[in-house]
Amino acid sequence: MFLTRSEYDRGVNTFSPEGRLFQVEYAIEAIKLGSTAVGIRTSEGVVLAVEKRITSPLLVPESVEKVMEIDEHIGCAMSGLTADARTLINHARVETQNHRFTYNEPMTAESCTQSLCDLALRFGEGDDDLPSRPFGVALLLAGYDESGPTLYHTDPSGTFVQYDAKAIGSGSEGAQTSLQENFRKDMTLKEAETLALSTLKAVMEEKISATNVDIASVAPTFHLYSVGELEEVIGRL
Amino acid sequence: MFLTRSEYDRGVNTFSPEGRLFQVEYAIEAIKLGSTAVGIRTSEGVVLAVEKRITSPLLVPESVEKVMEIDEHIGCAMSGLTADARTLINHARVETQNHRFTYNEPMTAESCTQSLCDLALRFGEGDDDLPSRPFGVALLLAGYDESGPTLYHTDPSGTFVQYDAKAIGSGSEGAQTSLQENFRKDMTLKEAETLALSTLKAVMEEKISATNVDIASVAPTFHLYSVGELEEVIGRL
Amino acid sequence: MFLTRSEYDRGVNTFSPEGRLFQVEYAIEAIKLGSTAVGIRTSEGVVLAVEKRITSPLLVPESVEKVMEIDEHIGCAMSGLTADARTLINHARVETQNHRFTYNEPMTAESCTQSLCDLALRFGEGDDDLPSRPFGVALLLAGYDESGPTLYHTDPSGTFVQYDAKAIGSGSEGAQTSLQENFRKDMTLKEAETLALSTLKAVMEEKISATNVDIASVAPTFHLYSVGELEEVIGRL
Amino acid sequence: MFLTRSEYDRGVNTFSPEGRLFQVEYAIEAIKLGSTAVGIRTSEGVVLAVEKRITSPLLVPESVEKVMEIDEHIGCAMSGLTADARTLINHARVETQNHRFTYNEPMTAESCTQSLCDLALRFGEGDDDLPSRPFGVALLLAGYDESGPTLYHTDPSGTFVQYDAKAIGSGSEGAQTSLQENFRKDMTLKEAETLALSTLKAVMEEKISATNVDIASVAPTFHLYSVGELEEVIGRL
Amino acid sequence: MFLTRSEYDRGVNTFSPEGRLFQVEYAIEAIKLGSTAVGIRTSEGVVLAVEKRITSPLLVPESVEKVMEIDEHIGCAMSGLTADARTLINHARVETQNHRFTYNEPMTAESCTQSLCDLALRFGEGDDDLPSRPFGVALLLAGYDESGPTLYHTDPSGTFVQYDAKAIGSGSEGAQTSLQENFRKDMTLKEAETLALSTLKAVMEEKISATNVDIASVAPTFHLYSVGELEEVIGRL
Amino acid sequence: MFLTRSEYDRGVNTFSPEGRLFQVEYAIEAIKLGSTAVGIRTSEGVVLAVEKRITSPLLVPESVEKVMEIDEHIGCAMSGLTADARTLINHARVETQNHRFTYNEPMTAESCTQSLCDLALRFGEGDDDLPSRPFGVALLLAGYDESGPTLYHTDPSGTFVQYDAKAIGSGSEGAQTSLQENFRKDMTLKEAETLALSTLKAVMEEKISATNVDIASVAPTFHLYSVGELEEVIGRL
Amino acid sequence: MFLTRSEYDRGVNTFSPEGRLFQVEYAIEAIKLGSTAVGIRTSEGVVLAVEKRITSPLLVPESVEKVMEIDEHIGCAMSGLTADARTLINHARVETQNHRFTYNEPMTAESCTQSLCDLALRFGEGDDDLPSRPFGVALLLAGYDESGPTLYHTDPSGTFVQYDAKAIGSGSEGAQTSLQENFRKDMTLKEAETLALSTLKAVMEEKISATNVDIASVAPTFHLYSVGELEEVIGRL
Repeated sequence: MFLTRSEYDRGVNTFSPEGRLFQVEYAIEAIKLGSTAVGIRTSEGVVLAVEKRITSPLLVPESVEKVMEIDEHIGCAMSGLTADARTLINHARVETQNHRFTYNEPMTAESCTQSLCDLALRFGEGDDDLPSRPFGVALLLAGYDESGPTLYHTDPSGTFVQYDAKAIGSGSEGAQTSLQENFRKDMTLKEAETLALSTLKAVMEEKISATNVDIASVAPTFHLYSVGELEEVIGRL
Repeated sequence: MFLTRSEYDRGVNTFSPEGRLFQVEYAIEAIKLGSTAVGIRTSEGVVLAVEKRITSPLLVPESVEKVMEIDEHIGCAMSGLTADARTLINHARVETQNHRFTYNEPMTAESCTQSLCDLALRFGEGDDDLPSRPFGVALLLAGYDESGPTLYHTDPSGTFVQYDAKAIGSGSEGAQTSLQENFRKDMTLKEAETLALSTLKAVMEEKISATNVDIASVAPTFHLYSVGELEEVIGRL
Repeated sequence: MFLTRSEYDRGVNTFSPEGRLFQVEYAIEAIKLGSTAVGIRTSEGVVLAVEKRITSPLLVPESVEKVMEIDEHIGCAMSGLTADARTLINHARVETQNHRFTYNEPMTAESCTQSLCDLALRFGEGDDDLPSRPFGVALLLAGYDESGPTLYHTDPSGTFVQYDAKAIGSGSEGAQTSLQENFRKDMTLKEAETLALSTLKAVMEEKISATNVDIASVAPTFHLYSVGELEEVIGRL
Repeated sequence: MFLTRSEYDRGVNTFSPEGRLFQVEYAIEAIKLGSTAVGIRTSEGVVLAVEKRITSPLLVPESVEKVMEIDEHIGCAMSGLTADARTLINHARVETQNHRFTYNEPMTAESCTQSLCDLALRFGEGDDDLPSRPFGVALLLAGYDESGPTLYHTDPSGTFVQYDAKAIGSGSEGAQTSLQENFRKDMTLKEAETLALSTLKAVMEEKISATNVDIASVAPTFHLYSVGELEEVIGRL
Repeated sequence: MFLTRSEYDRGVNTFSPEGRLFQVEYAIEAIKLGSTAVGIRTSEGVVLAVEKRITSPLLVPESVEKVMEIDEHIGCAMSGLTADARTLINHARVETQNHRFTYNEPMTAESCTQSLCDLALRFGEGDDDLPSRPFGVALLLAGYDESGPTLYHTDPSGTFVQYDAKAIGSGSEGAQTSLQENFRKDMTLKEAETLALSTLKAVMEEKISATNVDIASVAPTFHLYSVGELEEVIGRL
Repeated sequence: MFLTRSEYDRGVNTFSPEGRLFQVEYAIEAIKLGSTAVGIRTSEGVVLAVEKRITSPLLVPESVEKVMEIDEHIGCAMSGLTADARTLINHARVETQNHRFTYNEPMTAESCTQSLCDLALRFGEGDDDLPSRPFGVALLLAGYDESGPTLYHTDPSGTFVQYDAKAIGSGSEGAQTSLQENFRKDMTLKEAETLALSTLKAVMEEKISATNVDIASVAPTFHLYSVGELEEVIGRL
Repeated sequence: MFLTRSEYDRGVNTFSPEGRLFQVEYAIEAIKLGSTAVGIRTSEGVVLAVEKRITSPLLVPESVEKVMEIDEHIGCAMSGLTADARTLINHARVETQNHRFTYNEPMTAESCTQSLCDLALRFGEGDDDLPSRPFGVALLLAGYDESGPTLYHTDPSGTFVQYDAKAIGSGSEGAQTSLQENFRKDMTLKEAETLALSTLKAVMEEKISATNVDIASVAPTFHLYSVGELEEVIGRL
């Protein structure tokens, strides 16, 4: 079995006899090596929480960015290859600004997600701004637009779906189970903050603190929590 | 036998000594991993029904789109790689709008299907919008034009034919047998709805419900059933 | 012997030590997997007859096209990869219309055939409309021009010759023997229709009927037989 | 020895340790699979004679062209891949017409031959009109220009030399010996016709007839013999 | 294990089954073969110190440049392939000058670092100024801008983070431990100079002297220490 | 040893661990398969003499060109692949004519040689007029310009040096020894003619005659010897 | 070990697991096959001396150029592939002339060296004037500009450093030891000439003479020594 498999898995875009694309599946594995991120949608807005791996006490925690603003009504948490995420986020920022400029209105979160997935599909095309392999990154996009708060999940295959709550990264399996057990449709944003952090806490190897996690909310605009706000949420656990 | 086969099946576009193109055949395998979809043509119109795999209770069912409108008189059900389907559907939407703009009339379902198949043939050409491998997706196109209701089936080899009733995806074998036994040329649209869902029900692993299937009809315009309409059809089973 | 052979046969355009091009030979094998087609030239015109494989009772027979019009005085029967044939036929249709537009006269059948073979030679050139492998299709071109009725045969190597009667596809061996035994230079078009169908009948696995064969004649213009006309010919057998 | 050889012979343009280009040598082998052709130069003009393989009694002999006119004072016989020959001949026809148009005089046979060999050298360059392998064809060019009658031989390596009499193709070995024994510098054109056909007759497997050979002469203009003229020459044997 | 690994590590941009990009990881190994470099941030400014390998007594020490000015407020220390570093530094110099020219203000150290990392990601794109493999170099960027003194670390994967103190190169493991033990947030620039050199001294094989190390500070402008200044710092150890 | 060697020798431009470029070395082997050529420089001018392999009594000896004029003051003898030589010679002819046109003076033999070697270096660049492998040809360039008579030797590595007397091709080893023993700086052109032919005679398998050798001199203009002049020199032996 | 190594060393630009680029290292080996060259810097100017391998008594020694002028104040000695050196030197000559033309001042030796190393880095980019492998050549650049006399050494990795005295080529190991033992900072140019030749003499297999070595000095302008000047220096040994 292993031999057969390894014969098909190095071509970037080659089907195996079972109809699988192994390089895309391996890119999905790259995400399982990444730090854990969690997103929760409530009727008040969406919460994104991420683990930050502080590998050295001399590393400046603020410089590790795993949650980023795309537009004032769209935020994004990532897991996987940091540099690949940067390429995707930059693309989304340009697209949302172009949309505002052209149509004089914010882009919907769904259009923004679709634009990211179209880009993700285009690896290996020899284009200057694209890698010759699948993007090794998963994203959680939190948006708040005319259809209310939304949480999208994208993966290296260019597929996207909406979730009420979703975890990605190395601790995603345990975290997703925790979310399924504790998520309620009628949660407040505050309860979502607590659930997000308690979910991360359960899967993180290190003790949770204001330096090794980040929280952001889109409710209805993107807001990255300050150290004080973070410590307030940690205090609730 | 196996060794000989494996020597020819990784080149995207290489004939084996028996004159076969294995990468295209493997792409067809990718469809057998996909969710099941069913199409039935009646004199009143065409019914498309699809299974939606809801892998998590936190996933938002409406965001899983397996049936889509191409133009107001053409709809499409898919099985296989979601992102590949999106590329094809977008192409078809542009083509049908261009046709309306240029000729001031709707494109026929056959022209639309042929346009999709021409695109499907062009993989591996280094074009920016095309993958370097065959598209891993099968489509059922339901149309209603001057020649009445039509149901087309396309596969990764760029071949298309018309069917009275056709099933694709992981449950296609059992579903097709069921369709052959139960299809009648004089069926009403309502009977077709029931047959489509009962066919899906027989091959789905999960219990059928308004969240894990979708129905659409083109009779004569595309209409995606609401949850209420869906539950009405499920009730008939 | 086999090992040596397999070392040369995957390069699209590589000579073996014996001076053979295996990929072209394998493309010719692809035709032997195709449905059978027959062409017969008489002084009144040319008859083309093809087998249609109706793999499902729900498949719409009319949508399986194996005989096609190129121009009003040129028709074509095919065997092999359907989508490759479509690319070639489209090319021929454009060429014949361009000729009419430029020179105000119909293109001769020979020029049309040569144009198709020039295209067939150009595989692997990285051109957007061409596959990176040989075309896996054989064609029988029936024409009626200033030099009278003609029947051309083309294969994946880009070679073409004229025949009085020729069979291609999976049953071509038996069919060609039958044609050699029964063809006469002084046949009428009607006798050629009967010979064409009796030849197909002998090599088809299924019972011949108006749904699984097609006949067309170029005498002097292209005409695809209706179901009634087809049944009349079948009745003669 | 064999192993070492096979390691160098698949690269289109790779030297072996002994300084050989195997793909060019294999292309020369392709010619040894072709039908036999013969050329003889006399002071009155040049005779070209070719074998035509009539593989089926239903094949139309006139459609097998192995001798072709390039310009009114230059003819050409070929052996090897028919479609490759067509590409080269078309190139030569354009070159000779361009020369007439530009300089208002016929191109010399030597310039025409050199132009063909320059093209033959350019395989593998990614040019749209050129194959990615050597041309698998040998040509005998018969010309009559200001320097009198000339007979040139070209091969896939792009080399050309002049001959008094030369045979190419599957029977070339025996045919060349026969030519060496019987050629005389003071032959008449009529004697050359007889020698050409008797040479072909000796190496052909089938009985020689007006349907399986062709003769052309350039004396001083190209002339393809009619069936009557052919039978007259055959009668002399 | 080793066999499996080696099957995935030569493709410049291929994921292994575990989701790793080996060529990028090997480029990181190239840095471990490089000379050691150290950066320390204080509130007064940033200190960069590098080891210079003087492989011959006839080599001119000043010509070995491991610390370089990018703009007057940004400096850079490197470890790994010297020529790759030069390409990156030149790019950064052009970017910072363009920024001054376009916006009439200095570029921030973060923007400059991001620009370098975007370039580092673009290997293998066939661009004239970029290698077809990852850049085999790590950089320590010292900046002093409106947000005060900053120290950035970049690696071949295009990732960057901020540090209070960071060591790179062959002695980085021991040096980083030493920095963690001795760094204090309230250090003066002078104390940082001493710590940088004592850290280098501990990991260098040769005796430290004014010819085999270089120090530069950005406080707030770039300054490369003269031999006298260097000897003064060495004297403090 | 052999195994190691064969691993590096198929890449057109790959260094072996010992720093060798095998494809260039193999191209040099191709020359050792070629016919022998000899060049001798005297104060009166330069003599070039070549062996012509007349493989058939029906071949026209004059059509085998191994000595060619480049400009009226530069001639060239070749050994190796005839068609490669033609590409190089054509290039040199264009360069020398361009020089005359631009500067109104003849190009020096050294500039002409350098231009040829620059071209020889550019193999594998994807340029339309260049092969994707080294040129398999060596040249002896005889020139007579303002610095007097000169004899240059070029090989596939793009290196050139001047010789007083030099032999290339299959018999070069024996011929060079003969030249070393018999060459004198004060030779007359006539003595050089005799030495050139006696050197060829010693290494040729066939009996020397006016049909299987050619002589040319550049003294000070290029002159290819007539049959009569050739027989006069042969008579002196 | 050997097996592992050989798996990474044929890709032109592939890192081994230890972070090494083998093709660049093998190119450095190519230099070790080259003739020896020596450079010595004094306060009066720089001396370059090279060995010339005179492989045949009929070879013209002056045509073997291993020391070349780049600009009137910059000279260059080379070891390795002659034709690669020519490409680099031509590039440097154009750059220095462009500098004079643009800025009306001579280019500094450092800028000239950097320009050469930038070019050396760009192998494998598909540029028409660049090889697809590293340049197999090392250079010693002697310059005399506003910062006085300088001696630069470049290698195939695109790295350059300054030396007081440096040897390259097959005898470089012994020669460098000799230079280290005998070089003094206060040497006169005359003493440097003697040291350069005595260093070469010690590592050359043949007896040193005015035909098998060349000397040039840049003091402050480039001067290639005449035979008389050479013999004078040899006489001092």
